[in-house]
Amino acid sequence: MWKKSIATLAVVAGALMAISLPAMSTAAKAKPAARQINDGREDCYACHEEVKALKEGSKHAKLACDVCHSKLKEHLANSETKPGTIIDQALCGKCHKDQMESLFKVNYESPARKEKGVPTGRSPMMDKLLAPYGFTIEHNEPRGHAFMVTDQFVVDRFAGGRFQYKNGWTDVDKVGNTWDILKDNGPDFKMSETAKAGNPTCIQCKTSDHILKWKFMGDKDPKAQWDRTSDVIAVAKETNHIVGCIHCHDPHGTQPRVVRDALIQAIDDKGSKMFAGKDGKTDLKVISFRDGFRKIGVMQKADGRLMCAQCHVEYACGKGFEFSTGNPVGYDDQRTNHFPLTGPKELLEHYKKTQNFYDFKHAVTGARLVKLQHPETETFAGSVHDKAGVTCKDCHMPVLKNKAGKSFTSHMVIKPKDHVKEACLRCHPKFTAEQKLYQITAIQNYSKGKMRKAEYWLGQLIDTYATAKRMGVSEDVLAKAREKHEEAHVLWEWWTAENSDGFHNPELARDTLTHSVALSKEGVALLNKAIDAKAGAPAAK
Amino acid sequence: MWKKSIATLAVVAGALMAISLPAMSTAAKAKPAARQINDGREDCYACHEEVKALKEGSKHAKLACDVCHSKLKEHLANSETKPGTIIDQALCGKCHKDQMESLFKVNYESPARKEKGVPTGRSPMMDKLLAPYGFTIEHNEPRGHAFMVTDQFVVDRFAGGRFQYKNGWTDVDKVGNTWDILKDNGPDFKMSETAKAGNPTCIQCKTSDHILKWKFMGDKDPKAQWDRTSDVIAVAKETNHIVGCIHCHDPHGTQPRVVRDALIQAIDDKGSKMFAGKDGKTDLKVISFRDGFRKIGVMQKADGRLMCAQCHVEYACGKGFEFSTGNPVGYDDQRTNHFPLTGPKELLEHYKKTQNFYDFKHAVTGARLVKLQHPETETFAGSVHDKAGVTCKDCHMPVLKNKAGKSFTSHMVIKPKDHVKEACLRCHPKFTAEQKLYQITAIQNYSKGKMRKAEYWLGQLIDTYATAKRMGVSEDVLAKAREKHEEAHVLWEWWTAENSDGFHNPELARDTLTHSVALSKEGVALLNKAIDAKAGAPAAK
Amino acid sequence: MWKKSIATLAVVAGALMAISLPAMSTAAKAKPAARQINDGREDCYACHEEVKALKEGSKHAKLACDVCHSKLKEHLANSETKPGTIIDQALCGKCHKDQMESLFKVNYESPARKEKGVPTGRSPMMDKLLAPYGFTIEHNEPRGHAFMVTDQFVVDRFAGGRFQYKNGWTDVDKVGNTWDILKDNGPDFKMSETAKAGNPTCIQCKTSDHILKWKFMGDKDPKAQWDRTSDVIAVAKETNHIVGCIHCHDPHGTQPRVVRDALIQAIDDKGSKMFAGKDGKTDLKVISFRDGFRKIGVMQKADGRLMCAQCHVEYACGKGFEFSTGNPVGYDDQRTNHFPLTGPKELLEHYKKTQNFYDFKHAVTGARLVKLQHPETETFAGSVHDKAGVTCKDCHMPVLKNKAGKSFTSHMVIKPKDHVKEACLRCHPKFTAEQKLYQITAIQNYSKGKMRKAEYWLGQLIDTYATAKRMGVSEDVLAKAREKHEEAHVLWEWWTAENSDGFHNPELARDTLTHSVALSKEGVALLNKAIDAKAGAPAAK
Repeated sequence: MWKKSIATLAVVAGALMAISLPAMSTAAKAKPAARQINDGREDCYACHEEVKALKEGSKHAKLACDVCHSKLKEHLANSETKPGTIIDQALCGKCHKDQMESLFKVNYESPARKEKGVPTGRSPMMDKLLAPYGFTIEHNEPRGHAFMVTDQFVVDRFAGGRFQYKNGWTDVDKVGNTWDILKDNGPDFKMSETAKAGNPTCIQCKTSDHILKWKFMGDKDPKAQWDRTSDVIAVAKETNHIVGCIHCHDPHGTQPRVVRDALIQAIDDKGSKMFAGKDGKTDLKVISFRDGFRKIGVMQKADGRLMCAQCHVEYACGKGFEFSTGNPVGYDDQRTNHFPLTGPKELLEHYKKTQNFYDFKHAVTGARLVKLQHPETETFAGSVHDKAGVTCKDCHMPVLKNKAGKSFTSHMVIKPKDHVKEACLRCHPKFTAEQKLYQITAIQNYSKGKMRKAEYWLGQLIDTYATAKRMGVSEDVLAKAREKHEEAHVLWEWWTAENSDGFHNPELARDTLTHSVALSKEGVALLNKAIDAKAGAPAAK
Repeated sequence: MWKKSIATLAVVAGALMAISLPAMSTAAKAKPAARQINDGREDCYACHEEVKALKEGSKHAKLACDVCHSKLKEHLANSETKPGTIIDQALCGKCHKDQMESLFKVNYESPARKEKGVPTGRSPMMDKLLAPYGFTIEHNEPRGHAFMVTDQFVVDRFAGGRFQYKNGWTDVDKVGNTWDILKDNGPDFKMSETAKAGNPTCIQCKTSDHILKWKFMGDKDPKAQWDRTSDVIAVAKETNHIVGCIHCHDPHGTQPRVVRDALIQAIDDKGSKMFAGKDGKTDLKVISFRDGFRKIGVMQKADGRLMCAQCHVEYACGKGFEFSTGNPVGYDDQRTNHFPLTGPKELLEHYKKTQNFYDFKHAVTGARLVKLQHPETETFAGSVHDKAGVTCKDCHMPVLKNKAGKSFTSHMVIKPKDHVKEACLRCHPKFTAEQKLYQITAIQNYSKGKMRKAEYWLGQLIDTYATAKRMGVSEDVLAKAREKHEEAHVLWEWWTAENSDGFHNPELARDTLTHSVALSKEGVALLNKAIDAKAGAPAAK
Repeated sequence: MWKKSIATLAVVAGALMAISLPAMSTAAKAKPAARQINDGREDCYACHEEVKALKEGSKHAKLACDVCHSKLKEHLANSETKPGTIIDQALCGKCHKDQMESLFKVNYESPARKEKGVPTGRSPMMDKLLAPYGFTIEHNEPRGHAFMVTDQFVVDRFAGGRFQYKNGWTDVDKVGNTWDILKDNGPDFKMSETAKAGNPTCIQCKTSDHILKWKFMGDKDPKAQWDRTSDVIAVAKETNHIVGCIHCHDPHGTQPRVVRDALIQAIDDKGSKMFAGKDGKTDLKVISFRDGFRKIGVMQKADGRLMCAQCHVEYACGKGFEFSTGNPVGYDDQRTNHFPLTGPKELLEHYKKTQNFYDFKHAVTGARLVKLQHPETETFAGSVHDKAGVTCKDCHMPVLKNKAGKSFTSHMVIKPKDHVKEACLRCHPKFTAEQKLYQITAIQNYSKGKMRKAEYWLGQLIDTYATAKRMGVSEDVLAKAREKHEEAHVLWEWWTAENSDGFHNPELARDTLTHSVALSKEGVALLNKAIDAKAGAPAAK
């Protein structure tokens, strides 16, 4: 289905050919004279030495520049005329057919539109615990990468419901270019119980389409078509592909790389040890283009943890408020594009002290809550598997054989529980698949038990707070209870946002979830004490 | 099993042979002289011309009258001696073996006695939201038609528990004649947490046994053995078969038909456009017998929607109260046998204004609530599938082949999800069964998410109301909250009563369920405002 | 796996050879002179006539004493030197290979660490209904006998978390000797949200290792290494095997037997009719050793009900309180090792009047609650199956064939639902497995519906109590509500503790669970009445 709808995306402004290493910036800006083209590359290399450095000697060395770029002749004639760049996965797929086909393969084991916040769901008490945050409008269990854009755009909390499937529900398993699948019902469309919570930054984790139109960190810039404050509908409507090959693979030279700005910034700032090798260093060379307009990070050796960390982390991308003042923090503020890259125990402190940022106040208690995303990377860091040198792709992207018997890395990310043999037994050959599945399930059963207890006690804290407030319990007691709520909330929500049900790091899950329970119980106890004092009633017999 | 227990039900009083078209009533009442019988029909036709009109030229033309009727000789000798009529499906099954066997086939995929009102069930918050209505006693997920009578009679809310399986739980999958399977523990039998909520009208949707003993609309009449006020136990104990072939197929001439009185009345009253064809007319010729004692509706062409609408609709059949006065409405009132035949958005208005009828008051808020039944027909009306000309049988009654290779319409009504190939792929041949199942599941996942949210917010409304009342919030605020409860309740319960989890009309489900959420939130907000004013507490920080 | 870790447990103090029938006690204590040993038995029999009586003529007659006992020569030389006794199942397994291998077979259909107290679990409202009892810390669905010791030791409520798997979660399906699988993190180990609720008595149901070191009823005695007040950690660390063959089979003569003290006491005290045959007598000859230091009960014919009743009953083994005084009851009190052997309707009365013992007070209401265990035996007593002469093993321990085609009784206890053919169809050959599974499921669906309703109403009672207390409702009303709570609680918890979801006795389940609902509703009603009077508010409209 996606094959038919492959389209080329000619990106003009701020095109890749225009980027340059800082040392080359003057030369790059100079207008080259019109010249004879052979297979194109010599003429291009004359200005773009950095491309030559990546390309020559690499597996892509034999490709002519016009394979991926258009309007080269015009650009050579007049450097002000920008060339086009094809970002569509279909181009890469001409040679990397198995990888691309697997990327778009639908995993029918992962159902669509499965709400998390229901009694049988992954987050049964979500409506109470996250009130009134947008995720309470609709928050579904994730399904494959092939749907990452369309699922985001149609969810009831993204754009007020104006983006819907063109042909209704029969499009729910359709993959391919966004606007071949979706339609826009327009700005006047009204739909009950929706939210307009999408923003341009969150789209950068779902697509590579804007890679040349978005300044590093999404700051405003005359050279950037989009920034953090852009109209999200406009950005969405020019988003036609899911995250592309180029997010993880340098197109000029096939080097493993990362492009997501907040990840690069976090590693640059803190020299994050999360991804360090045995030598204590992180294998990431950050390259700045066009005086910092863009940065990419190139690895010597592909590190699945870094590649996946471009999205599978806790991050801030929405508007929020300052802890210190309560003042709003808008999209003009760089704090709305931030990767903490820290563990659950340190996270609240990080947001309170370093970032001075929270997402929303709880509807009942008024506690200042951080909305968690999907911190798989931070969870996995330091786990038994991480220490053993396992990376994401070892379990989630198995090496398969195509029909011709040739091996390739599947880019349909698998759930190990559905593919235990491929995911586990290569490293654990002495176990049967039945045993490994049993062990995984045991961990998840245990972790889910703790999650449910953390939810129960957060709920008790919220309900007891409501009673206390109505009975006129003093603000100093209420303030202490809110603080317990803030602490207990982060330690719980981490795990309902994280997608492994504790498997990525069972000890950390146990440790933090039970600490959440303990904090909620402390909050309930101090409220109950104040309530009983108010009521003049003796404590429970 | 059922084969052994087939019994004939000789219906004497008000027998079918006695019915007559109004124009013929004088002739029919005249006593015919004793005459020679050949194969019977000429003698019968002498008085019963309407039978001749239906029968001659039809597929049943070759059948002699005494195939289905007994005591014909006595009746001919003395018309006061009424003939008998065999209603048992077994008689029809002599020729329509495949249809009858499929009608009684047990679908082991549909479990028995599966309570809806449990956390993992179809209506997890039922005990709170429907308190104190009888459905909170026991309310199970439906299983096949073969169990429609026995399941109703044994459910703990029907007859105080006095009807039970003869051999205990091993009878739970037994089909056949009611009283071969069940026993009556008698009027003195006591069982905790039961209700006696059955009534004669509700039995008319489960069986055809009383078709000649029940006046149109169940009104009292000397010629009728039963009416709406009859002793339900007595009616039950003479109910031996599930809905018979004759509910949908005229026995004299095989014409497609309907017999359920409240459906015929609703279409007659309003000329319901719900079942109209492209010409704007509903294909239903209503025929009145015996000066309106009975009515049937005959179709030119079988319309599955009409046939199924005899039961699969929202209806009122129990006692209730008037909105305007609060006075009880008893079974003597025709409002206790009523089909609204209207959609969820218009339903409350219909019950408030037109019917002036509600079922019960909520235990906590005192809101006047309408108990919803299973409005599949109204839900489907106007849906994508309805507009495409699909009717119920196309998805639920597949054409199968018997062992001899002959095609027949299965009368074991299927769940399409268990039989996607038969139910969907005839019309959608370009999809695989896996895809269609995935798409159905997506709709249901989404709709179930909205149902759970509607339930959560109704629960919040109820709990907040209890707090408000206890804090002395003024009656005018409480009254507004009750009104919100009344509105939000109908829009939710429609979908938990309806059996498709939104599939029959996903847009309508989404629209009404989210409106239910919005209404509940409005109720919670106005109560909280009043509570905070009472408490003198500031709003949540 | 377990094969490699088989170790012999040489038990010295209070060894089996030292026990004697009362009449023989003098002879047994006399020091025998040093003598020639042939195959050992004549010398042993000289003092141990009771062993001769059990052994000679039995299936074990041909075994020499030193097969199971060590240091015989030394013991013969000096009777003060106690012989050793091998309790390890591995010894029995040398001849009874199939039985032993099946005992240790892992049933991968039963997941590990599956918390009951979650919305989709067996006891969804446990955290509220059992607060603050230790079971709210972690309470899992049971899995096979092979894990009975390790599962108990690692559960978060047993030893504060200090016992954990040696190799982490990959040990979760490992069977064999306890301390080959587990490690002890030591007394200083701290883990959040754990409890230290284990006690020496509860270990006696999990292992046979202490059979010679534990006086009857666990009373303190110089000859006993352990008693009820012993350090549970010390007892645990010397517990290396799950319940052994000798729990149910006398090792000297293979006679069917029971050894669990509280069962023997309960039958001795009350001459329990629960296990009586048609002659009204229970087939259990109780033999007292060493002046009552130990007792065993020997059967003429194996009665699975008695054997299983050693563990699968309601019992008290933890500390508690007296109903009459509120005073604590410690482990020094024999009430902490007690089998009531009574049904759910009589149980509270038994604990209130006869035992004067309750386990804990509810966190909110202060009701004095009995913590139920797994009363399968009492539930089954009097059921349809019990009356038909069925015993536990008939459904749970099928006769299988080994690879050589030889029949043996499986000692991997099965869930009948997973093995309907073996469990049901031998006695019900006219049904298909599909039908029987359907019928079982129907019973469980119905019973689970009632359980969920009982939970809902207990929750309502607790919440309403909290409101009432805060509004200053008078103590006499609160006291009445607490009494309702105490009664309703037992009738509910029985069934969530019992493992058949009502199947063992559907009528009893229905009867008691609905009575629990009725009692909770009475409690709610009397509280609401008092609350409304306080609030001056009119009752719900």
